[in-house]
Amino acid sequence: MNSETNLARFKTILNEYTDLKNASALLRWDQETYMPPGGASERGYQLATMSRIAHLKFTSPEVGQLLEDLRPLSNELDPDSDDARLIKVTERLYKKKSKVPASLIADIAKATSDAHLVWEKAREESNFNGFIPHLEKIIELRRQYAHCFKPYDHVYDPLLDDYEPSLKTLDVQTIFNSLKPQQVELIRAISRRDQIDDSFLHLNYDQKGQWDFGVEVITRFGFDWHRGRQDESIHPFTQSHGVGDVRITTRFLQDYFPSAFFSTAHESGHGLYAQGIDRKLSRTPLDNGASLSIHESQSRLYENVVGRSLEFWTHFYPRLLEYFPSQLGNVPLETFYRAINKVEPSTIRVEADEATYNLHIMLRLELEIALIEGQLQVKDLPAAWNSAMQDYLGITPANDAQGVLQDIHWSSGYIGYFPTYALGNLVAAQLWEKLIADNPKIQDQIQRGEFESLTTWMKDNIHHHGAKFEPQELVQRITGSKIDPDPYMRYLTNKYTDIYEL
Amino acid sequence: MNSETNLARFKTILNEYTDLKNASALLRWDQETYMPPGGASERGYQLATMSRIAHLKFTSPEVGQLLEDLRPLSNELDPDSDDARLIKVTERLYKKKSKVPASLIADIAKATSDAHLVWEKAREESNFNGFIPHLEKIIELRRQYAHCFKPYDHVYDPLLDDYEPSLKTLDVQTIFNSLKPQQVELIRAISRRDQIDDSFLHLNYDQKGQWDFGVEVITRFGFDWHRGRQDESIHPFTQSHGVGDVRITTRFLQDYFPSAFFSTAHESGHGLYAQGIDRKLSRTPLDNGASLSIHESQSRLYENVVGRSLEFWTHFYPRLLEYFPSQLGNVPLETFYRAINKVEPSTIRVEADEATYNLHIMLRLELEIALIEGQLQVKDLPAAWNSAMQDYLGITPANDAQGVLQDIHWSSGYIGYFPTYALGNLVAAQLWEKLIADNPKIQDQIQRGEFESLTTWMKDNIHHHGAKFEPQELVQRITGSKIDPDPYMRYLTNKYTDIYEL
Repeated sequence: MNSETNLARFKTILNEYTDLKNASALLRWDQETYMPPGGASERGYQLATMSRIAHLKFTSPEVGQLLEDLRPLSNELDPDSDDARLIKVTERLYKKKSKVPASLIADIAKATSDAHLVWEKAREESNFNGFIPHLEKIIELRRQYAHCFKPYDHVYDPLLDDYEPSLKTLDVQTIFNSLKPQQVELIRAISRRDQIDDSFLHLNYDQKGQWDFGVEVITRFGFDWHRGRQDESIHPFTQSHGVGDVRITTRFLQDYFPSAFFSTAHESGHGLYAQGIDRKLSRTPLDNGASLSIHESQSRLYENVVGRSLEFWTHFYPRLLEYFPSQLGNVPLETFYRAINKVEPSTIRVEADEATYNLHIMLRLELEIALIEGQLQVKDLPAAWNSAMQDYLGITPANDAQGVLQDIHWSSGYIGYFPTYALGNLVAAQLWEKLIADNPKIQDQIQRGEFESLTTWMKDNIHHHGAKFEPQELVQRITGSKIDPDPYMRYLTNKYTDIYEL
Repeated sequence: MNSETNLARFKTILNEYTDLKNASALLRWDQETYMPPGGASERGYQLATMSRIAHLKFTSPEVGQLLEDLRPLSNELDPDSDDARLIKVTERLYKKKSKVPASLIADIAKATSDAHLVWEKAREESNFNGFIPHLEKIIELRRQYAHCFKPYDHVYDPLLDDYEPSLKTLDVQTIFNSLKPQQVELIRAISRRDQIDDSFLHLNYDQKGQWDFGVEVITRFGFDWHRGRQDESIHPFTQSHGVGDVRITTRFLQDYFPSAFFSTAHESGHGLYAQGIDRKLSRTPLDNGASLSIHESQSRLYENVVGRSLEFWTHFYPRLLEYFPSQLGNVPLETFYRAINKVEPSTIRVEADEATYNLHIMLRLELEIALIEGQLQVKDLPAAWNSAMQDYLGITPANDAQGVLQDIHWSSGYIGYFPTYALGNLVAAQLWEKLIADNPKIQDQIQRGEFESLTTWMKDNIHHHGAKFEPQELVQRITGSKIDPDPYMRYLTNKYTDIYEL
């Protein structure tokens, strides 16, 4: 066959593979939103079967042969072209996935689907014990998964690499080691200042007002409702089923305004990314983010860098007052702005402020590595969690629901995922510095409620490319350097020097 | 391999096949309920890919070989046992499906998924023209599908057989030919009586009250919310994703009470069937109804035979009055009962009364056969529809939305499906006669709002067996005769003789 035919056949297989992945994504979305509880067991089988079939399709000898046959073509193509990148990314994934037996993939899908409802219940009842055998099974399966990639520098490397192509455990540890003392120092400096009063955020905010205001804001960000929707779920998330169907979720706390709003803003960043991917990449593995940290850079940028900025609220606070006049009528903009940026060590990661957030991640990284290495047993995890919380943040969760059970990730088998949140913060700050350099008027625009050039810049520089570039390569291309903690520390220091008059 | 191993392998393949079918069902459910419009095109590809893979899995040479190898075992087993029936039903499906190329299956899935939104829009705008090329394509693909089964007595046979295993076009025509003059005669007799006033059904009934009352009733029928849910969609339907996850939908007319309530009651009959299938049949092709007419017998029984009976409302009318005191406070039970059973030729099938309903079906059967035979062109369909409406019911739809565009079926590629609705009415009446013979107190129980023995009888006689028996065999086993129009005519005649004092 000639290379045209090979390429067409190659794409057909990848199209089908992507269709299956997108269909599985819908099954997972449904599991978190509308599935009746009685459907859990069969849903697990459905997801396992679809994972197995998708895996077998992607790792079939035919794909291996096509990759071989396409090498000459690949060498002729512009290395940045869609086709060259599709071949390159597929080759990387093929080499990785081929090392994993389909049965292990299906076992992981079934185990995590089963674990999901157990985790939900355990969290509801704040009872870790029922969850132990499920988490043990998941850790064991994830360890088996990592073992497929021997030799490695670190057993955690193959897990991290699933979310951050080519990044190593050591890279992350190096970044975190540089970051930790600086963040701890900043938090200490803040803790010496007067506490900020945010009691007015804890009044009763009716759910419909919260929902409507969030929708109004992210519509202005550019979220396209023709190609997306928002629902409720216990743990907010974004799921793409292709560029035409990108769904976000949020959750409401009636007595704490920031929870739903910043969730919605956060997920809208993910959503804009998924909606912004070039349609030409549809139904291929390139219709995806570059990595989770790049994805998170978008969500954290819209949530924090933009959504917790004084410029943003200068425009939107008057509008928020129309929704909640009795709760906020007597609260000046500056007071509101300080309150939503209050720094205070707390137990829940997703509610953490920007200064303490990364410490929640470092704690999880430490525990995950110990679990996968076998240094820590699942049954000892709650004690280890609470002790690490004391160590990193100087507090202890009231119970396991507020502690070790708070996140969905482990029940979903996502080991290696957490570090990408902290990296996302760093990348967001790097992009923000570059964006301001490119367009010094961006903050004035935000102050006027104009987000078009912001979202267009993100779309052109990031969204559009999908998964064509690996994360370090993409950040390098845009900013001129790899993932770097310094812009984030500059961003934090500037912001909190202002707010806390450090 | 021994037959144990063969059977286990056989079941594994069927489990995976069923997982894919259940997953596809979820994609279709989502398409009708929550999918943003931008997702339509990719959803089409996803459904096409999944259909193709499921089809290839089911028709693989391995399944053919296993069926051969299992023949000796099958001959030893009790012919009514689950395993014997699983082999028998699979063999039938295998023989049928093997004749169809996977590409045609995928083409049908894609064409119908694409046609779906077009139909929705065409119906909304009452504009048939935009829908023409899509329906032409579907008719052509369905004709190609039928041609895979040459030789046949009638080109419509293979289509009908998909929904009613082993039933022939001639069987249906024979039944309809016996029924039509009797129903027409009954309608004529009714038309000579005074019109019933049902204006109070057309007042403003708030949606929440409608929803809550419907939920209350079907909960009493036995619908299990732990294993099911209800949502809204344009065209009400029931979708099972396994016995633990059975979903129904309804739709609301603010100014016509019966619409949502009888939809909900109708779909709950389907839902009870799907929830009542023996768990041992899960993840196999037997986790399904015996046929669509048997399914419809359940929905029509709960909707009409029970839900429009005087006994039912004797119990529930006082409760309905609590929901809608201002609308119904001055309406006596008898008046309400007559109103919800008012006979009047009308254009919309799903709103049709029991006396005229089957005529809507006969009309569709006639047109479908003409389309598939090529005697009728799609572009001429609206005119043919309107002329047939005059012929059968003496009325003409105000527009195509009220006429040829009213049903979702053709846009979904469901040709051969409509007759099952009328057959379902007949089977419902047959089952009802037998149930009363078995349990003469059933009507007293219904009058007391007790549905347990009703639903248990249906479960034991029908639901439990899933797809183990073909429809004619099942009806014969339960009632002692095949599908028969006489009990339905007796039921109609008794009912309307009372109501209209014929």
